[in-house]
Amino acid sequence: MGMVGGGPGSFIGIVHFNGAILDGQIELVCGAFSSDPKKSKITGEKYYLTPERAYGSYQEMIEIEKKLPEGVRMDFLCITTPNHVHYEPARLALENGFHVVCDKPLTHKTEDAEKLVRLVEKTGLLFAVTHTYTGYPMVKEARKMVQEGALGKIQKIVVEYPQGWLTRPLEKSDNVQAIWRTDPARSGKVGSMGDIGTHALNLAEYISGLKVTELCADLSIFVPGRKLDDDGNVLVHYNNGAKGLLFASQIAAGEENDLNIRIYGEKGGLKWHQMEPNTLIINWLDKPIEVRRTGNPYISSIAKYNTRVPAGHPEGYIEAFANIYRNVATCIQHRLAGTKPPAEALDFPTVYDGLRGMNFIDALVESNKSDRKWTTLSSDF
Amino acid sequence: MGMVGGGPGSFIGIVHFNGAILDGQIELVCGAFSSDPKKSKITGEKYYLTPERAYGSYQEMIEIEKKLPEGVRMDFLCITTPNHVHYEPARLALENGFHVVCDKPLTHKTEDAEKLVRLVEKTGLLFAVTHTYTGYPMVKEARKMVQEGALGKIQKIVVEYPQGWLTRPLEKSDNVQAIWRTDPARSGKVGSMGDIGTHALNLAEYISGLKVTELCADLSIFVPGRKLDDDGNVLVHYNNGAKGLLFASQIAAGEENDLNIRIYGEKGGLKWHQMEPNTLIINWLDKPIEVRRTGNPYISSIAKYNTRVPAGHPEGYIEAFANIYRNVATCIQHRLAGTKPPAEALDFPTVYDGLRGMNFIDALVESNKSDRKWTTLSSDF
Amino acid sequence: MGMVGGGPGSFIGIVHFNGAILDGQIELVCGAFSSDPKKSKITGEKYYLTPERAYGSYQEMIEIEKKLPEGVRMDFLCITTPNHVHYEPARLALENGFHVVCDKPLTHKTEDAEKLVRLVEKTGLLFAVTHTYTGYPMVKEARKMVQEGALGKIQKIVVEYPQGWLTRPLEKSDNVQAIWRTDPARSGKVGSMGDIGTHALNLAEYISGLKVTELCADLSIFVPGRKLDDDGNVLVHYNNGAKGLLFASQIAAGEENDLNIRIYGEKGGLKWHQMEPNTLIINWLDKPIEVRRTGNPYISSIAKYNTRVPAGHPEGYIEAFANIYRNVATCIQHRLAGTKPPAEALDFPTVYDGLRGMNFIDALVESNKSDRKWTTLSSDF
Amino acid sequence: MGMVGGGPGSFIGIVHFNGAILDGQIELVCGAFSSDPKKSKITGEKYYLTPERAYGSYQEMIEIEKKLPEGVRMDFLCITTPNHVHYEPARLALENGFHVVCDKPLTHKTEDAEKLVRLVEKTGLLFAVTHTYTGYPMVKEARKMVQEGALGKIQKIVVEYPQGWLTRPLEKSDNVQAIWRTDPARSGKVGSMGDIGTHALNLAEYISGLKVTELCADLSIFVPGRKLDDDGNVLVHYNNGAKGLLFASQIAAGEENDLNIRIYGEKGGLKWHQMEPNTLIINWLDKPIEVRRTGNPYISSIAKYNTRVPAGHPEGYIEAFANIYRNVATCIQHRLAGTKPPAEALDFPTVYDGLRGMNFIDALVESNKSDRKWTTLSSDF
Repeated sequence: MGMVGGGPGSFIGIVHFNGAILDGQIELVCGAFSSDPKKSKITGEKYYLTPERAYGSYQEMIEIEKKLPEGVRMDFLCITTPNHVHYEPARLALENGFHVVCDKPLTHKTEDAEKLVRLVEKTGLLFAVTHTYTGYPMVKEARKMVQEGALGKIQKIVVEYPQGWLTRPLEKSDNVQAIWRTDPARSGKVGSMGDIGTHALNLAEYISGLKVTELCADLSIFVPGRKLDDDGNVLVHYNNGAKGLLFASQIAAGEENDLNIRIYGEKGGLKWHQMEPNTLIINWLDKPIEVRRTGNPYISSIAKYNTRVPAGHPEGYIEAFANIYRNVATCIQHRLAGTKPPAEALDFPTVYDGLRGMNFIDALVESNKSDRKWTTLSSDF
Repeated sequence: MGMVGGGPGSFIGIVHFNGAILDGQIELVCGAFSSDPKKSKITGEKYYLTPERAYGSYQEMIEIEKKLPEGVRMDFLCITTPNHVHYEPARLALENGFHVVCDKPLTHKTEDAEKLVRLVEKTGLLFAVTHTYTGYPMVKEARKMVQEGALGKIQKIVVEYPQGWLTRPLEKSDNVQAIWRTDPARSGKVGSMGDIGTHALNLAEYISGLKVTELCADLSIFVPGRKLDDDGNVLVHYNNGAKGLLFASQIAAGEENDLNIRIYGEKGGLKWHQMEPNTLIINWLDKPIEVRRTGNPYISSIAKYNTRVPAGHPEGYIEAFANIYRNVATCIQHRLAGTKPPAEALDFPTVYDGLRGMNFIDALVESNKSDRKWTTLSSDF
Repeated sequence: MGMVGGGPGSFIGIVHFNGAILDGQIELVCGAFSSDPKKSKITGEKYYLTPERAYGSYQEMIEIEKKLPEGVRMDFLCITTPNHVHYEPARLALENGFHVVCDKPLTHKTEDAEKLVRLVEKTGLLFAVTHTYTGYPMVKEARKMVQEGALGKIQKIVVEYPQGWLTRPLEKSDNVQAIWRTDPARSGKVGSMGDIGTHALNLAEYISGLKVTELCADLSIFVPGRKLDDDGNVLVHYNNGAKGLLFASQIAAGEENDLNIRIYGEKGGLKWHQMEPNTLIINWLDKPIEVRRTGNPYISSIAKYNTRVPAGHPEGYIEAFANIYRNVATCIQHRLAGTKPPAEALDFPTVYDGLRGMNFIDALVESNKSDRKWTTLSSDF
Repeated sequence: MGMVGGGPGSFIGIVHFNGAILDGQIELVCGAFSSDPKKSKITGEKYYLTPERAYGSYQEMIEIEKKLPEGVRMDFLCITTPNHVHYEPARLALENGFHVVCDKPLTHKTEDAEKLVRLVEKTGLLFAVTHTYTGYPMVKEARKMVQEGALGKIQKIVVEYPQGWLTRPLEKSDNVQAIWRTDPARSGKVGSMGDIGTHALNLAEYISGLKVTELCADLSIFVPGRKLDDDGNVLVHYNNGAKGLLFASQIAAGEENDLNIRIYGEKGGLKWHQMEPNTLIINWLDKPIEVRRTGNPYISSIAKYNTRVPAGHPEGYIEAFANIYRNVATCIQHRLAGTKPPAEALDFPTVYDGLRGMNFIDALVESNKSDRKWTTLSSDF
């Protein structure tokens, strides 16, 4: 694997790294960690890379790596830069035959996301987008339960993602994360809704198997001087008639990373909380509450496939990341071997999920400007 | 105290009774428990009333009781009937000089609520509406914290009230509660939003001290054949610029009575869950989470005033009801004695809260029909 | 009902009162609230008693009340005094034909407890001891599950009762509760183990249906100058071969009233926490965790019998107390009517549970002095 | 790093691997994964080792590796075999100049543990023992709080480790883990108390900074035919006068891996639960409960040093393992560089903790056989 981004001050670069290498299937062999070649070299040293493979730019990296023999060159590119530097390295990687794992939101502009979809379809290469939270085993368990009809027809979905870290104007300090995330030039046309709202949508649609078809958005900027939304409340309609709420906030003072979902069907409801991810709660209409826990014999095979340790030994965020990477690595290994990967390994978010997120962002912005109650979100694919 | 309603199959009548008598200050001396005089007598026996004071109608009860000497006659009327039988007994009681404690929503029609407000203002009598949840000590603690500015300016409020008991068409069984609550003739123009949505509004406005000024409602009927909403999602704006979500549902399968609120200010956020009511959680921006618990020395005097037992001895729903009744009883005693009640005793929901709920219902219905995003909710008083 | 104790500074007197009257079946008609007749009168006024029935001593009260006609005189005596004033009023009440509800521990000395047992057997009167915690509906649900064999043979029991309120030498302040509870002359030969340890034993034996047969106690006094144990750790053996731990502490700094129990059988384990009493957690060997909640249709009839409100409306400590009183009142009513009470009403702790607690205290003290590992606790009855 | 053990059916080998490589500082370069050379090769392939470095025995591995140049040869040996194969590879590694990371309990026999201590002292090599649970950041936070006196003098400690997986006779199935753990020849003279009881002791002594000086043990075998304890309850005394309970069970039906600790001082108490490891709860005498969470700005530097991701992104068991490995790796790097490691990196369990566990086991066995209440556990070092 080669990495773009992840230099000093990065939060997500190191998480990609930890997640990628955790299972021993993936090795970081090269990187373009910073647009400053010196900083890139320094970061390369921290990762024990040989200096010549800590490149000064992703263009250079792709250019040189593609000439290296298979088994030596990177097998895929991992993109952990701010949003405005997703598209170009992704495009270049695909055009040069490299698979891609890209952070979310997929791109800065929707048209770029559409181009990436077409490139992926044309090249047949793998393209994962790290909607990390669907990598948790109990999220997969939840999806499986819904698929099997355990809850009956889904009627209501409440998905929420409160954080509090941007309650203060951190972008006026030296906090690199806050600075780029609140800057339209780097983040895109939304702030919190792109950063975390897209995760909420992805989680709701992944577990429920439904698609949002229309929405009514109320985005806000609470911190004076900020240019992008730091809070958003959204009413949503799903393609089966289900209704719901989605909210994301980065001014929910005191909240850490409190992604939560509740899905109610005709027979029961389920609850999952990211901050206690190894637990899935099911409320039944006429029966006691059921609590399923990661690592137990009774859970589904897809959840087991994404679990490493026995019940009661908590797995967390890095392991969820690692599940995406392990699945991608398994698929690449099977491609190299000319074999078919197991069905479980195909279960990771792709370029289509990335485009979906961009379409969601567009609909949010349109709705937020509008006096009409409902704005359509296409659910064609 | 005299009671209207509370006959066979009633849920809330007995709760009013338990709450009223818990502290030994109030005695049930008469009742019109059913429109069927025989049933009323039978219920009267259960409450150890003398047969002649188990009346066949509230009209009869008020007529006779008002002629009894003070100290013998009821001091106030408690109304626990379905919504369409709130206004008339309340009006009659006020006109005959009796204080009133009435269940919510206040009336069947808003104009009736307005009439009651005018009658209360004219007569100077006490009129309590049992928005029970604001009777909990930790709700009062939360309100106190907001009042004192502990959280800074309030920016976001999420209040929710999911129940699951109407996921099935219970109104087609012999479930008395389900039958009248889903019947427009008895319940009014909304279902779940009147039954529990008004509690959610009351809780949010009580703790925050803010008023909803506009809202965007998406009400639904999920159970085929049902005539009133069994679910509703609402975006709300508050009078200080805060924004939020309010939802209530009776098809949230498997949920019991899960009223929850989260209020976020510039300095921190607080959380209260009705199903674990003795706990108040405060998330701070830069400090560890703080958990306040009923009955401890450090809580506010208003919370202590509404607490009976030491910390760790849980108080619940009946005690929250009892707090309203105790406050009403204290105010009545002081009136009789010609003295001024303590400030804490004045803290109970009144006819104005009842009217507020009716205005909220009207705005919900208007918004739900409209294609416009926002509908105004007056916050004049 | 007549009450002994419950004067100024009393904690438990008012709780007995609230619990007794909650359901409207019991009325406080007289009391000897203090050994100071003036204080007794003042307390009587608070309870709206006529002055002549606020007596200056329990002797006087029993003497006068027994001469009043049935229906006017008290039906039973409720004893809420410190431990050293349990025996005499209980004896006198029984000898004069009154049923008794007595706080725990039953007496100051075991020989007195034995005398009360013999008196109860001789007179045939009812005698309840307020081991309150077995009044909670989910405790009864737990007992029912064990009785039905749901957990298989019980193998391990962990029961614990940590409180923190005596971490400081409160007995040196004007805290009436602390003063008498730490005084051997009023409390007896143990402190925390009598005050709360006996509750722990009662809970474990009630749910499991087992009896402790031998124990190994390590009692401590942590606060300098205190004369009775403020902490105790005990290993226990049960009569079916199960083993376990029991601990009680009043120096567990910061704990409120955290009575907890875990019972493990061959098929699963259950957990109940007094501070969240409406929840019963069952961990199964091969199935998801099951969470049963008060007020749901699926719970046992004995639990339902002891529940007042629908699921999700929390019931607490006063309601647990009220369950004991309601059961006693129901039994008394049936006696007066010459009918047989329902089986559910017979389920309250009696004079035998009181004696059991005294025997437990004796065994603890003996074990604590001994170098031998095990001390026998008779489980004859 | 080279590994002994971790072949087919191993649970802990793969965890050591994941933990070791997570941070990218350690590479698995060789292994003796099984006593069967073929199985060892197959496991080696899974770890992407070159075939010649998947050895048929640890003797062979040490023999060959020590001849390889620094930078190529393994830097340290990681031992993940059953208990009876800890001592010999550890001894051989030390004698040949390799640092060691060894699973617990340290050895099969105490005399072997003592020999290892002497060898470590003689060679000056690093020797870590994977008492994993002290690797969690909030455990380090807890220790720091106690060290700083935040809780005042410690008076009571309750540490418990219930598991349920051996409630059934799994050792009669093909469960490799159950088979060796219940076999005295491989596990040693205790079962559950060695497997998990030693973790409980280590956790209590690590956080409190205290030492157990005497204990009273009640060990049990509940499953018929089993040869080693599957449950144990222990009273303990600490060297500062604190008292407590320690229990470990593998027949606590339905429990996963529920290691919990509560420590009470004169000013407050703290609670940590392994299954929700990112939370530390502090109960104060006169203040609201405080909840500290991993990854927040307010936690101590030692806790931050052992944290990877921001607050709200859960870290788990593998990360706790990785903290030990990262600390060991840091120390080795500094040794190689001739520099002094940061103080934080020295904070990992060592051969002395391993010997302490063995002494604890000896005292448990002695106490369990004895009729005397107390058995001494030396706390000399």
